[in-house]
Amino acid sequence: MTSPLRALDTCFSPALYEPKLHLDAVVVVIDILRASSAICTAFANGASSIIPVAGIDEARDYKEKGFLVAAERDGFVLDFADFGNSPFNFTNERVRDKTIVYSTTNGTGIINLASSSFRIVIGSFLNIDALSEWLIGLDKNVMLFCAGWKNRFNLEDTVFAGALAERLMQSGKYSTICDSTLASIDLWSFAKPDPRTYIEKAAQRTRLKEKKLDDCIDFCLTTGFTSIIPVMIDGSLVSLT
Amino acid sequence: MTSPLRALDTCFSPALYEPKLHLDAVVVVIDILRASSAICTAFANGASSIIPVAGIDEARDYKEKGFLVAAERDGFVLDFADFGNSPFNFTNERVRDKTIVYSTTNGTGIINLASSSFRIVIGSFLNIDALSEWLIGLDKNVMLFCAGWKNRFNLEDTVFAGALAERLMQSGKYSTICDSTLASIDLWSFAKPDPRTYIEKAAQRTRLKEKKLDDCIDFCLTTGFTSIIPVMIDGSLVSLT
Repeated sequence: MTSPLRALDTCFSPALYEPKLHLDAVVVVIDILRASSAICTAFANGASSIIPVAGIDEARDYKEKGFLVAAERDGFVLDFADFGNSPFNFTNERVRDKTIVYSTTNGTGIINLASSSFRIVIGSFLNIDALSEWLIGLDKNVMLFCAGWKNRFNLEDTVFAGALAERLMQSGKYSTICDSTLASIDLWSFAKPDPRTYIEKAAQRTRLKEKKLDDCIDFCLTTGFTSIIPVMIDGSLVSLT
Repeated sequence: MTSPLRALDTCFSPALYEPKLHLDAVVVVIDILRASSAICTAFANGASSIIPVAGIDEARDYKEKGFLVAAERDGFVLDFADFGNSPFNFTNERVRDKTIVYSTTNGTGIINLASSSFRIVIGSFLNIDALSEWLIGLDKNVMLFCAGWKNRFNLEDTVFAGALAERLMQSGKYSTICDSTLASIDLWSFAKPDPRTYIEKAAQRTRLKEKKLDDCIDFCLTTGFTSIIPVMIDGSLVSLT
């Protein structure tokens, strides 16, 4: 007997997320430029855990308690923080065996929004190989939750959702009746031959360039960098084992 | 001296609309299956005006005052209404020289949301030729506002936005830094060779099919049916002259 197919859904913005529809789903949090890429990098470089916080005050409180704090708004590092959210900040020397408190413009807030789901994991091109394999082996519905930018749709999160959705659909374990998923797969088919050039036109690419923060984009589009899947457990992200 | 380019933006859902950003823009309301197609058909068949109302009670009040009322929820005609929102209902015999009160699941609500904009017009494949020409001749910013379905992204409104955006961008009068516009243009390039087959996979297509309301889809994808552009003036839609 074959198992029924699992549902694959995609959400393009925190403003469109419907928590009650995904109580039983694994939610993949996607913020390619740059939070989910940075979080995957931190674990690849040996971080032991990451505490995501939404508010600036909460991040500052943690700093005063002696935590290592990564915090920024609109691409700028907050004055009390140790560093911002470029993946290049999360070096082995800085993060190995450390707990990092992490606050960003978009990424952290959506982890809170999805807190009623079955499980939250972090997805990026850096861990897409391991993540897709794990999801294909799991018998759960999946929600691909794009952080977007200030509640707006963005291209880079969407094409990543499409890249992951393509793998899940090709496994034969998933089906979808979600127009967002279908659109993301089609957009990924545009981006796939040359993701760097495709992302070039995205608004966030322009925003990062204006702030000279675009040096990490090639890295954020690299696949197979790490096999670690960050997962939320009791308020912290840890490496899935 | 060349004029500066005008901004072209796209919004995928009422939940993502930011009224303050579009005070000076022409907002094109898009609900391809089926409200914006039905409204264009009504004017093509001689309706003199359409009063859009969001609520069921308001539509019922108009019916009691003797108005012709088109009203449905989730594809079903409301019991007090004269007919629902299939374009095929708006025949010449029924609508010529009439004022129609119109209430739908998605379409009407977004007209209210966009009421602070410079002007609201109704867009569909049926009037895309006239609409794109008019917009290209106008020196205004444009917001393509997709009704979606219960606040969700949908494919059919998005590919129409892409079809219209493609024409506006090709005119050389517009520029865009909006990721939603860029995505819709790319999705339209997928749909363009065979829109009917592309729309086949959309969720609303499935919903209409289940209710046997899908007979109008080929019609809703027809271009050049009418050169009328419905425009909101003082709470009613009338034909732009």
